[in-house]
Parts: sequence; C-alpha cells; structure tokens
Amino acid sequence: MTAHASEFDLIARIRQRTATRDDVVVGIGDDAAILSVPPGKRLVVAMDTLNAGVHFPAETTPADIGWKSLAVNLSDLAAMAATPAWCTLSLSLPQPDEAWLDGFLDGFLELAVHHDVTLIGGDTTRGPLSICVTAHGLVDPRGALLRSAARVDDDLWVTGTLGDAAAALRKWQSQRPVGPLLRARLDRPTPRVAAGLALAGIAHACIDVSDGLLADLGHVCRASRVGAELDVDALPASDALIAEFDPATRRELQVAGGDDYELCFTAPKTARLAVRDAMDACDVSVTRIGRITGDAGNILLRDAAGATWPPPRAGYVHFEG
Amino acid sequence: MTAHASEFDLIARIRQRTATRDDVVVGIGDDAAILSVPPGKRLVVAMDTLNAGVHFPAETTPADIGWKSLAVNLSDLAAMAATPAWCTLSLSLPQPDEAWLDGFLDGFLELAVHHDVTLIGGDTTRGPLSICVTAHGLVDPRGALLRSAARVDDDLWVTGTLGDAAAALRKWQSQRPVGPLLRARLDRPTPRVAAGLALAGIAHACIDVSDGLLADLGHVCRASRVGAELDVDALPASDALIAEFDPATRRELQVAGGDDYELCFTAPKTARLAVRDAMDACDVSVTRIGRITGDAGNILLRDAAGATWPPPRAGYVHFEG
Repeated sequence: MTAHASEFDLIARIRQRTATRDDVVVGIGDDAAILSVPPGKRLVVAMDTLNAGVHFPAETTPADIGWKSLAVNLSDLAAMAATPAWCTLSLSLPQPDEAWLDGFLDGFLELAVHHDVTLIGGDTTRGPLSICVTAHGLVDPRGALLRSAARVDDDLWVTGTLGDAAAALRKWQSQRPVGPLLRARLDRPTPRVAAGLALAGIAHACIDVSDGLLADLGHVCRASRVGAELDVDALPASDALIAEFDPATRRELQVAGGDDYELCFTAPKTARLAVRDAMDACDVSVTRIGRITGDAGNILLRDAAGATWPPPRAGYVHFEG
Repeated sequence: MTAHASEFDLIARIRQRTATRDDVVVGIGDDAAILSVPPGKRLVVAMDTLNAGVHFPAETTPADIGWKSLAVNLSDLAAMAATPAWCTLSLSLPQPDEAWLDGFLDGFLELAVHHDVTLIGGDTTRGPLSICVTAHGLVDPRGALLRSAARVDDDLWVTGTLGDAAAALRKWQSQRPVGPLLRARLDRPTPRVAAGLALAGIAHACIDVSDGLLADLGHVCRASRVGAELDVDALPASDALIAEFDPATRRELQVAGGDDYELCFTAPKTARLAVRDAMDACDVSVTRIGRITGDAGNILLRDAAGATWPPPRAGYVHFEG
C-alpha cells in the first residue's frame, strides 16, 4: 500500500534531502527563498514544465522524471553560458506518495548535486502529475550567449549526436523495444553545462535543441534576422541510431526530432580551432553542420551532393520574420 | 468556435503584451531571461502553482485565475518585505486557446503592471489546466521578515479581515449564491506588498495567511521555536462575513479558512504605535490578535472571557517542534 502524507510531510521530506550553498541566505521553509547574487554577475532564469503523457511516457520511472525535469532547465542555462546555482520545484501529484517522491528526488538531486545546484523552494500540490522547475544561474555581463547573436557566414555547429531521443520516443510509441542507449537519451538527457560555459567568448549565438534542430535553428535565425544552410549529411548520429533506422528515417529524426538537449551554436570561421579545443577540453564531441546566410528567415537543407533535401518545397522552411 | 494556436503563437501573444523594466537585460524570447540585480540587494524567490478544481472553482473566469496566480506569489514576497520585480509563468492548457489566454493575461498583467512586475519568461504546454508562477523580488540584506524571528512576548497582528475567502468557497461548494465582496476576496486577493514593505524594521516575524491562520501561525511558531495565544474574539471580520454567517461558523472560517492572503506578523509591544502608523500610511487596517508565548509548539485559543475555545482538546493545537 502506498503511504499517504500531507503536503507538509512531503516538503519536510524534500527539505531533509536538500544540500545548500553559501549564497543561500534562506532556503526551503519560509514564504520565499533569499539569495545572495555576487557583485558583477547577472541573474539568468529559465522555467520549464513537464506534464505526464505529454513530455514523458507514462511508465517513465520517478527517478528519470526527476532527472529530466531539472535537466531541461539546466540545458536552457547551458545555452546562455550561465553557471547553474539554484532551482525551485513545483510538484503536482494525484496523491501525496512518499515512495514516488523519494524516487523522483533520487534523480532530481543526483543531477542537482552534480552541478552544485541548491533546491531553494517551491510547492507540492494536488493535481494531475506535473513538474514545473525554475533554474537560476549566474553569468558575466558580457558572457551570455544569445539567440540573436548569429552573423552571416558564421559556421553552424552542434554538440553530441542528434535524433536519439526522438528515436526512442518513436519506438516507444509504436510499442517496439527501446535499447538502453536510446532510452537513456530520452529519459536522462545531459545538459551541456560545461560546453556552454566553454563557448562563452568563442561562439556567437547558441540554443539548446529541445524542439528539434530545424525548429530551434529557426528560433536563432528569426532572432538574428539571418538564414541558414544545413548540411543534412553532416548531422552527427549515434551508433545506436545508425544501427536501428534506415538513412531516410534517421535523417528525419535528426532534423525534426526534439528532446536531444544538445547545443546548436554559431561561431566565426576563424574560431574553428578554438571551438574544437574548447569542446575537447570538456570531453564533448562537436560537429560543423552548416553555415549562417543572409537569406533572412529561410533555412536551406542540402545533402552532401549539394542537392536540396527533402525536395525544395518541404526542405525550404519559411517562417514569419 | 475556439481559435487554436501553436505554443509559439501563444508565447508571441504573451510577449506582445508584456511591458519591461530597465533591469531586464533579456526578457521573453531566448532560452532564459537575464536580469540585473542592483548591488547591495538580495534576491527573493517564491513559487506557487494553482491547479483547476483544487485551487480555484472550475467556473472561475480566466481573468480572475490570471490575477490570483500572480497574487499568491506576490503575497509571499510581501511576507518577506521584498519589492516585487520579475515573474515567470508556466501555463498548461488542455488546448491552445487564444481567447482564454487573452482573458488570463488581462487579470495577470493588471496586477503585474500595478506592482511594476515584468513577465520575463516561462513556457506554455499542453496538459490539464495548471498555472505555475515564480515571483522574484529584491530586499535589503537586513530588511527581510522571516518566519523564524518571532520572540516571546511579541504582539501578534493581522492585516485586513479573515475568513472571507473561505466563506466564499464554502458557499460555492454548497451551491449557495456568493455575494460580490466575498467572491472578490476569493478570486482577486490583494497581496499586501506595501504593508510588508512598511513593516520592515518594525515587525519581527511575518507570514501570509494562505493555509489558514492557525496553520500559518503554526509555521511561525515552529520556525521560531515559540508558542502563541490567539484571542479568537479579536479576529477581524468583514461586514459581509458578519452578515452572512453565525458567530460559531464565522470564527471557524476566520481561524481555519485559507486563501485570505493577509499578513500575520509579530512585533514587540513597544512598536504598537509604529505598527498602526505604518499600516495607516499604506491604508491597510490592522488588528492585534494575540501574543507570542514561550510554550514552544503550542497555540492556545482564548475567547474574550478568557476561556479556551474551542474546548481544550481541539483548541490546543500541538505539532512536532
């Protein structure tokens, strides 16, 4: 039988397991948290919600849900080149369930501890399973990487591999078995925090790939008032993706699939060596996948032979500038 | 027919209506927001979620839901004596509904503008109706009012009137008509921001009455390791509450009903005049309702005749210290 507990019991349980940082003046347990922001730093704030059945399959383990709910927020900080510091958590549960909460905290706090992030507050409420997290980071006034900073002729880069999370989701949706490598990419995404920090001062624009490469590149192009050419045959694929999908499906997953939480960024051509060195230093693979163009609002997909792919009408994505 | 829109359409709609402040370096539209925290100030962060059917009746208007979802968070900042500055909003909607969103923003932004709060980010997702808000404020390093600062022999005070929101909810639940005054107290609570700021340097401990006076006073007593005596006949009641409920029900609503969002605070006896002057200056009524005792962990309820009320067993509330 599931143990039932009140909201206050759950909060006490969360509080008990929460570590702290020196800059947390007041953490969990008052009406609000009080934080000390170092002089000369700017505050960076991201907020993302995961809803059951929408953002994760219903049978996802509580620990994986905990990990992912923080990971997607740290990924947003990574894309700004911010150092994570604090987070808040709002947890809506159908009923107070201590065992579920313990599992959730296992995953959530494992990632929090790894990045020295302190959980400073939030609430637990009754409702359909939903997890809302706010992540707070710090950045030097001129160090932040913005979507709006891409320049014409910049190289276009991406960290890691693309399409794995979407591949896992597709297999799950069609009730086929999902291997551990692809499943881990869906359930336990790695926020590229070190990579984001290493790119400050080197990259121009940056975004994390959450909606899908094409959609996220679209956000960068719109914010920067530029276009892009994407070399679809250059997109990095994991061995698992190559082994399990035909080339056409794989390409589609890489271009349009979301939830990879890799960083897609632009940098001047003169910075190629600096980019590779910076990513080597934090042990993250990086691939050059195209370039920024002056054709504002348009993204052209080309294959290795130079042909547009898929046929121009679908491949030539237009959006409101 | 309801117009349907994508998540990006909704975000664009929100962004279009959002004002800004000078200290918002990057607002809605990037992976995260960037804020400039003034030197010498501390950051105060509160987060609260409202779920349909749990935190508001299903037929509440979108504008009232918008107002309340921000109000409950500003109330937490008020209880810390913080000046509100920024907020984030995560909106889960069963389907993208522009008309609903417009109504929601009417209420949300009306309150935001009133307190010079800028909406800096968040997300919109598909899911059962749920609204998660994080409010950010600023406070002087020594100006914050904490739950843990109550001292033995402090007076116990409360702003405004108690029990109105719970009265409205009770009427609604029993399908009786709810008058506009009580209904407004449930749907459009007034965060006591000016009162909180005015109490900095005067009050010791402070909390907002969201769970109910007795529960919230319990939080203060536990955090401060003190007890309290509450004068139940002194609790302030609105004319509407007096007109519509018998004295016993009224008392129960005042003592145990939540959602009033008044400030309950403690202050030294020597500060009685200062408390009244400070509340007069911001046009907020204030009532002395008891005192802090050394009987840690216990709250004694007394009526005007000095008898404990309700009978000791129920009236003498004990909780884990």
